[in-house]
This record gives sequence, structure tokens and C-alpha cells, in this order.
Amino acid sequence: MRQLDSQSADFDAALTGLTAYESALDPQLTRTVQDIIATVRADGDAALLAFSSEFDGLAAQSVAELEVSTSRLETALASISPEQREALEAAAARITDYHQHQLQASWQYTDESGNTLGQQITPLGRAGIYVPGGKASYPSSVLMNALPAKVAGVQEIIMTVPAPGGEISEMVLAAAQLAGVDRVFTIGGAQAVAALAFGTETLPAVDKIVGPGNRFVAEAKRQVFGRVGIDMVAGPSEILIICDGETDPDWVAMDLFSQAEHDESAQSILLSPDAGFLAAVRQSIERLMPQMPRADIIRASLERRGALILTRDLQDAVALSNRLAPEHLELSVADPDALLPSITAAGAIFLGRYTSESLGDYCAGPNHVLPTSGSARFSSPLGVYDFQKRSSVIKCSEQGVQALGRVASVLARSESLVAHARSAEMRLKSE
Amino acid sequence: MRQLDSQSADFDAALTGLTAYESALDPQLTRTVQDIIATVRADGDAALLAFSSEFDGLAAQSVAELEVSTSRLETALASISPEQREALEAAAARITDYHQHQLQASWQYTDESGNTLGQQITPLGRAGIYVPGGKASYPSSVLMNALPAKVAGVQEIIMTVPAPGGEISEMVLAAAQLAGVDRVFTIGGAQAVAALAFGTETLPAVDKIVGPGNRFVAEAKRQVFGRVGIDMVAGPSEILIICDGETDPDWVAMDLFSQAEHDESAQSILLSPDAGFLAAVRQSIERLMPQMPRADIIRASLERRGALILTRDLQDAVALSNRLAPEHLELSVADPDALLPSITAAGAIFLGRYTSESLGDYCAGPNHVLPTSGSARFSSPLGVYDFQKRSSVIKCSEQGVQALGRVASVLARSESLVAHARSAEMRLKSE
Repeated sequence: MRQLDSQSADFDAALTGLTAYESALDPQLTRTVQDIIATVRADGDAALLAFSSEFDGLAAQSVAELEVSTSRLETALASISPEQREALEAAAARITDYHQHQLQASWQYTDESGNTLGQQITPLGRAGIYVPGGKASYPSSVLMNALPAKVAGVQEIIMTVPAPGGEISEMVLAAAQLAGVDRVFTIGGAQAVAALAFGTETLPAVDKIVGPGNRFVAEAKRQVFGRVGIDMVAGPSEILIICDGETDPDWVAMDLFSQAEHDESAQSILLSPDAGFLAAVRQSIERLMPQMPRADIIRASLERRGALILTRDLQDAVALSNRLAPEHLELSVADPDALLPSITAAGAIFLGRYTSESLGDYCAGPNHVLPTSGSARFSSPLGVYDFQKRSSVIKCSEQGVQALGRVASVLARSESLVAHARSAEMRLKSE
Repeated sequence: MRQLDSQSADFDAALTGLTAYESALDPQLTRTVQDIIATVRADGDAALLAFSSEFDGLAAQSVAELEVSTSRLETALASISPEQREALEAAAARITDYHQHQLQASWQYTDESGNTLGQQITPLGRAGIYVPGGKASYPSSVLMNALPAKVAGVQEIIMTVPAPGGEISEMVLAAAQLAGVDRVFTIGGAQAVAALAFGTETLPAVDKIVGPGNRFVAEAKRQVFGRVGIDMVAGPSEILIICDGETDPDWVAMDLFSQAEHDESAQSILLSPDAGFLAAVRQSIERLMPQMPRADIIRASLERRGALILTRDLQDAVALSNRLAPEHLELSVADPDALLPSITAAGAIFLGRYTSESLGDYCAGPNHVLPTSGSARFSSPLGVYDFQKRSSVIKCSEQGVQALGRVASVLARSESLVAHARSAEMRLKSE
């Protein structure tokens, strides 16, 4: 794992190289996904059955057979261990509580001329949630994607999850049942995204598609964007830890691991002004590594994209963090609240030595779907606001329109839009 | 202009055909724009100078020469007529007032175990605004794109506007000065979008790019999305009017014109349960058409994409409107407030006979950048929230982490993410 010094001459270039991540467009992938989407649009259910047979080895005769019944979801919830069920329920309750704070309310006000201006907030009608299947099967993702939609008041939530060879995670089905997902289809890949975007005879079209997936799913979401809404297209997961050197180095090492174990492209960076502490964390890393079931992935990730960085002081560390706009930021320092106002960009901020990033992944309450690859500069965690929309509301009185109409007329004529001007002028009393 | 009846057997198919709008991907356009972006990334200022010479006939020796000085902006503001200046100032004041209602505030709460959860709201650091030049030169667009960023607290606003042959609208420059745009460059096209996304020696990279443009600009925004944020990629403008038959048919005809005059793909639809009123509006259209400077565009738009639709009643009209999710919706009825709660999707809603859509385009207060082509089902008008971002905040106490850590541990182990589990378990007292 490399070590950098923020005061060295070549530091800027080294940091830029380390954090650069670009998903190059793959023309072959683009074409393959275009074909899948066009086929699903044209052939509907028949296309879904053909792709599910080809890619997942499912020999269904109808898409109805690919729908998971409510009783099957209930069975899954009853089948998991009491400990797992309690954990899912505790997480769901906390996630719901947190997200209720994000609910927006409609508002109106009246100006001095008696015109009413406002904003009407409404939930999306139908949301689609893509859940990966197979090895990367995450019940926590089901909760994090479905519950904000539920809190927003979305009328119907449709979930798709691939079941290669018919296998599906009981915990994923249990989480869907607990989160109030309305319908579940065992369909995956670009064909699931296409079906959610355009609808088929059996699977209804949704207004927005959220949830992580492989590169086929990500490319399909990119292509259907505009027809439906999508959440972000996520890059590799990242953690950045700022530590004053007083946290147990084992804790910090394990927090770095918890990001690195996702995959070899994940990024774990530690910033500290204490060189001795960086050395201690390095020792913890070596000592704890052999205990990790995913040691190979962790080691590859830390070697390829990890870094221990010596900073001048904590302010220097904050400035570096703001430049990188990390997905997860731990402020593992004595007075994290003092640093918080100076953080200008981060997906989620974990304050204090006790607040491990993994709490945020599962049950603290905030969402674990977060902006990656520096996009926290301009975007936000998945939230209730992603499942609500706003309509502007304007109501002019006969009196109020008099002044407004004159202003609109002058500006419309300056843009040579005469019908715009006339439409305002016709409502003026002098006409 | 066609007339439809919502009760006829083939109505659904006719409506779907009428409102379908799809911007097909153009592989040649995609490649051209990819090349322009790659060239600007590689060659920076030199590429901007070359493209500005090629596309806009500008013979500048440096990008600094393409920057519009503050004194030139002040000159523009001083050069427009007093009537125009008053109109711009009145519009800017009302737009600012309205958008201040959209400001979000950070929040925190403490749970029963002493954990603090919250959301920190921060403005984007730097925003880029693309403003079209030449014939479609709209000062109102400058206000509508810049003022929400200003209200959000964005530190620096960079505007690019093409100046083909050196020509540029005084009203556009005046609006930029009035709105508090920080820097203006006379650069256009895909090269301007590339420069805003990646930065050059002279033009700084921004965090988000907003504003309308031609198909090169739209494709460039699509390609740089992810590197920076973008607003929506807009389709043709649309208006849908629901009228009870009691509004002056000339007013309604002119409101239909005001959308149709934008371009031949714009869409104007009138819904009414009163067949006699539809006939009267048709007469108004024919009588008023010859007075319109843009009669050719208006006629083509109404013929190609316009419709007068007879509905069973007002409820039927509202249901059709919700299905189409129009960009602009006029409720030209006696009691528009009674209909408002049943509107589930629309960009902007204009209540009552006096509230012409054109007031919203210029000066009522709400933004005129609105979701088109049915995307009001899942997206919202441009607003202050587009220039703010949210960071989740989590702070666990030593006490509070005990229950949370156990839940995280169970869920992490169910996902086979052992480092996640260990990182939570290490903070437990029993360890």
C-alpha cells in the first residue's frame, strides 16, 4: 500500500493519478444493450422469456411464472433466522425514521398584487428497483432502495432480481416483503431494465428505475434515461478517513478493509498528520489481513488504489477531502463537529471514532446509495426527494396580471416571440 | 389542426401517436461530439481557439480575448432601453423571491440512544450556464438558469454563449450582469460544454452544466454527464390547456400559438368538454393567425402536433393530462383550485383564465426550465435544489453504537462481508 506526503512536490500528480477513474464507453456493450432493449420493446413478454432462458437458464412458459407470489415472499420472511429478522426489522425502522425527515411539503404564498405562487409536491406513480442476484446478493440494497420510495408515497414498487438457475436469496425476498415491495419478478440484466422502462404485457412500465447492477444493467439504465428517470450510474466504492492519530489503529485498518473488500477497484484512503499513526495502521493492516476471508480482494484493492497520506495538519486533510469529494468520509478525530462545517463535498460523513462506515451501510438510518467518483461535488445520496417531483403553481388575479403582463410583453418582444407577448397583453385591462 | 374525441374507439392510439416523441441516437453526431470533447481535453485553450475560428469565425489569439470583460457587461446593461431594463429587473426580483422559497436547510436529530443523524446542505462550488446565441437568443434563459444558482449560494457562475461572427445580444449580456454571472466567455457548441466539464488553461472546470442548446450541445452534455452534473436534456416545448368553455376563445388560441411559435415540433393541445367552444377556438385560430409574424412555424406546429380534444368532462380532461404529464398545463376553468390536487404530473400549472403560460416564461417567479416529453412523471423544474447537494451526517456515541453495531454485524455477515461486520464489532464493549 503506497504512502504519500501532501507536502512533496509530486503529490498533486500522484493523487490525481491515484483517484482517476473513468468508465470508458465500450461500443460493443452499447450495441448489445441497444439490441436487447429494442427486442424487449418489440416483443414484450416473449423477449423476456427468451432472454431469461438464454442468460439465466429459466424455462418459464409465461412471465407470470417469473413473478414471485406474495405467499412466497411471506415464506421467505418466515424462513430466515429470528436474529436476521430482528436485524432487518431494526434496520428498516431506522431507515424509515431517517428518511421521513426528507419529506418535502407543498407550499404557496401570495404576492402583494394578489398572485399566488407555489410548488406542489407529488410522489412518483410507480418505481422500479433493480436488485442484483447471484453472489452479490444484498438484502440491505433492497431496504435502501425501496424504503425511500415507500416514504415518498410511491403507489407501486416493482422489483426485478435475476435468479440464475432458479436460485434466489431468501434474505433478499424477506427484505422485499418487509419493505413493502408490491411485485417481484425474477428477471435480470438489460432486459429487466428495458421491461421496467417500456413495460410488457405482464410487467408494467415504471416512472423511475433505481438500484445497482453489472455493466449491462448500468448501460441499459443510461440508454433508457429520459424515457424514465434513473438514479446515478455508480462507480467503485470509496472511503476516505481523516484521523488525528488517536483512534485505535486496528479500527481504522478494519474500516479501510470494509471498503476494499467490495472489489479490487474500490478505494481506501487514510489521511493523518501523524506519521507514527500511519505506520501503526500499516502494521495493523498486515496483522489483520490473514483473518479476512476476502484477503485477496482487499490486498489487491489496497495495492492498486489505496493510500496512506501524511498531511500537514487536519485542515490540510479537509482540503484534500473536499477536492476528492469522497463517497464515505470518516472524521475519526477528537472534535469532529468542529470540522463538519468545512466539509464542502462528501456523500456521507461519519463523525467520531465510534462511527464506523459499516453502520451507515446497514442500519444507522441514512441511505447507503451514495455519489461516487467525485460526483458528491454535484449530487446527493438516494433519498425521498428522488421519489417525489415538484410542479410549479401560478395563479394570477385579474388585478395581479396587469403589472406582470407588461413585463412579460416587453421581454417577449425583445426575444421576437410575439404570440407570447400578445397572450399576456390580451389579459390587460387597457386592451 | 386535428380534432379528437376522447370517447371514440381509436382515441388511445391516436393520442399515443400524436404525443410520441423520440430523439433517435445519431451515431455520426455521437462520434463528432466525442472527437470535439477529446480534442478540448487534450489541447485545452488551443482547441477552443481552433473550434471558435472554424465554427464561429472568431480570430482570437487567446481564450482571454474570448472572455467578456465586466466593463463590457456593464456597458450592455447601460445600453438597453429603460423599459427593457425595468422589465429585466422586475423579472429578476420576482424570480429571486420565488426561488428563495426553495432553499433547503441542514437538519439533525438525536435518537433515543444518543446517536446524531442528519443532512448537511451545501451549494455547488462552480456552475456553468450554456446560453444559445444567434437567432434563439433569450435573456430570460440567462435569468432562469443563473438566479437559482445565485440563490443557492454557488460561489462562481461561468457562462458560455456563442458569438457567431462576433455578434452577441446586448440583452443577453445585460441579463448576465443583472443576474450576477461571474465570468462570460463567447464560446459555443460542444467545445464550450467540453471546456466547462474538463477545464482548460483559461476556462475553469465547473461542477454542473445547465442551459439549453442545439443538438451538438445536448449530445455533449449527455457525454460529459457523470464527470459533471447536467440539467435535463430538453425535448420540444409543450402546452396543454384544460378549459371549461368559458374563457375568451381568442385568449386560448393565443396561448396555443405561444407554444407553437417556438418551433415546428412544439406541441399545443386543448382539452374541453364543450364542442362549441372547440369550434370557437378553431375560428379564433384562423382569424388571429395572419397577425402572427411566425405564422408559418405556428401553422406547421399546429398541423403536425397540435390537437383540439373533446373530453367527456373536466375529470376526463384531468386524467388525460396526468397521462401526458405536460410541460405547461393551463387550468382555464372557473374553479382551478378544485382541480389542482388531482394533477399528479405537470412541469408548471397555471391556474385560472388570467394566468397565461407566457407569464411563467418571463416573470411570474417560477422557473421556465421544465421537464418535457412526459418527464414530469419523474422530474421537476430547474430549481435551487439543482445547485445544492446533501451529505448524510452520522455520529454515534459509544453507548449508541452498541445496539447498532450488532444489527450491522448480523446483516453484514448475511452478505458475507466480514470486514464490514468486524469493523462494527470492534467498537462493541464486549470485545
